[in-house]
Amino acid sequence: MKLASLKSGRDGELIIVSRDLSQAVRVPQIATTLQQAIENWDKLAPRLDEVYQALNSGSAEGAFALDQSVLHSPLPRTHHWADGSAYLNHVKLVRQARNAQMPETFWTDPLMYQGGGDRFLAPQDDIEAVSEEHGIDFEGEIAVITDDVPMAVTPEQAAGHIKLIMLVNDVSLRGLIPGELAKGFGFFQAKPASSFSPICVTPDELGDAWKDGRVHLPLTVHLNGEKFGEPEAGPDMIFNFPQLVAHAARTRHLGAGAIIGSGTVSNPDAGGGPGKPIIDGGVGYSCLAEVRMVEQILHGQVKTPFMHFGDRVRIEMFDPNGNSIFGAIDQKVVEYKA
Amino acid sequence: MKLASLKSGRDGELIIVSRDLSQAVRVPQIATTLQQAIENWDKLAPRLDEVYQALNSGSAEGAFALDQSVLHSPLPRTHHWADGSAYLNHVKLVRQARNAQMPETFWTDPLMYQGGGDRFLAPQDDIEAVSEEHGIDFEGEIAVITDDVPMAVTPEQAAGHIKLIMLVNDVSLRGLIPGELAKGFGFFQAKPASSFSPICVTPDELGDAWKDGRVHLPLTVHLNGEKFGEPEAGPDMIFNFPQLVAHAARTRHLGAGAIIGSGTVSNPDAGGGPGKPIIDGGVGYSCLAEVRMVEQILHGQVKTPFMHFGDRVRIEMFDPNGNSIFGAIDQKVVEYKA
Repeated sequence: MKLASLKSGRDGELIIVSRDLSQAVRVPQIATTLQQAIENWDKLAPRLDEVYQALNSGSAEGAFALDQSVLHSPLPRTHHWADGSAYLNHVKLVRQARNAQMPETFWTDPLMYQGGGDRFLAPQDDIEAVSEEHGIDFEGEIAVITDDVPMAVTPEQAAGHIKLIMLVNDVSLRGLIPGELAKGFGFFQAKPASSFSPICVTPDELGDAWKDGRVHLPLTVHLNGEKFGEPEAGPDMIFNFPQLVAHAARTRHLGAGAIIGSGTVSNPDAGGGPGKPIIDGGVGYSCLAEVRMVEQILHGQVKTPFMHFGDRVRIEMFDPNGNSIFGAIDQKVVEYKA
Repeated sequence: MKLASLKSGRDGELIIVSRDLSQAVRVPQIATTLQQAIENWDKLAPRLDEVYQALNSGSAEGAFALDQSVLHSPLPRTHHWADGSAYLNHVKLVRQARNAQMPETFWTDPLMYQGGGDRFLAPQDDIEAVSEEHGIDFEGEIAVITDDVPMAVTPEQAAGHIKLIMLVNDVSLRGLIPGELAKGFGFFQAKPASSFSPICVTPDELGDAWKDGRVHLPLTVHLNGEKFGEPEAGPDMIFNFPQLVAHAARTRHLGAGAIIGSGTVSNPDAGGGPGKPIIDGGVGYSCLAEVRMVEQILHGQVKTPFMHFGDRVRIEMFDPNGNSIFGAIDQKVVEYKA
């Protein structure tokens, strides 16, 4: 099943989207918002799925052509947004960029930060930033939406609470990170509003690509129309989603609609090296910070700047037949004037 | 005006509470939840205030006797909960306890962490904890609720977005903090669900005690029925609430219902020392971590343990006539079994 939210009010208006993303239909008789649906998932999901089947077979009443640009993030806001950092190649590279070692415990204990969930960006809306000096970067990631998760669940139990999957652009302000992390309380101003793919899907939509709690497909990232990265999201995710959800719930219950992110998708080389940019024959990256560090390593100098006002990033995932699964995050950076 | 939420559903049911906390009344004709009210504050606040005036004069239809134990936190959940740490005496002491220096920049750049807002505790419900080994502690604080705050507001502009004030128990698991902060991403598992005072109030309810963006009254904390602290919340709050709200909004818009906390209320001595426990003639503290550090300094050893299952903390604030302003946070720690 594929779901999305039309821009409408603070929580959007829930729609069902056809598998090929061409059609959609409102479902006010079942739920008006995705938040409402996820709070009553066991009861409502079968009813939503009936509409989904009808939509795919062309028999859904009220169906209309889908325009991704009018969609908000599937949950335009949430009460809980926590982002892991499960691709340790990313962690190694961004730490290297700020001369920080990666402790061995990072292989056994997931990194995770709590983000702000009150006003996500729509997937095709501009990214407002106060200053280019903040080092504006994107981070292409995958995230899951859970229903209510009890405190101290095991990863095995957590797996059953993963109801929906989507993509994320975890916008990051690299220039603010070192100062902020030095204070010891983690990210805050360095992590402004994120955006999510226009469409979220139930795990079964991914078929064989959803296994071991990971999405085994490449994540495609374009910067200003040029391919920037196509890393595989499966193999190098050191902690899978059930482990990340269990980590988030270790000392507290999670409320329905909680979003847990994977961290920036990143692949090391077969030999354990940091990978290569597309231009050097590698699979590239899904954030600028990594390619900048690798340029430094490979070529002795950073060539790629952080994002300027007017720059555009596009993040998408395709199935083996080339069909977009989640629709596209496609955002331009613009200057925000207070 | 004083507001509260009856336990009901995920967002509670909004009620107006009389100034003396004795009476309350539902207001479904205006708003059914506090979230709804804060999202439409400018329009709804005058109507809510009319009911408040009627309630205080004994002429509100449908008024009933208030029982604080059936109240949830004013916002049982929020899309944005961020907690500052504006009392630097607290920061100094808890850092000293883990052998960390306090940088000079802490006097000019506020500390703030993003918390989980999905499932707050009710103010008189038990605090569930997995293990006493986690070092269970309370933190008595003050917090404000804002309406929509635009990105990059000045502190002067932020002041006008502060609509409601309440108390917080920012439950902390001290045993998990050093390991978690060493990872560099800030608190996560160390900060389980917080609870808030049963009643929140508009700033005008505090009269002269609300000035310079601070609450100039003592915060009263009892541990197992004994007075544990009565620190002054005003003078030693290095960053005021408008500054904290502006800090939170520096790189993003805040959604209505955002909660910004002050950090643990704490007073140094007149001479700049770390203060004294009640038993030593001081004003005491509003968390265990501080008193433990001070015991170490004054007596060469820590005497006070962290909370055991069965222990109870009570956090309240009184006006100069001895009337409770916000009602009482009063919680027992219990073992949680998964």
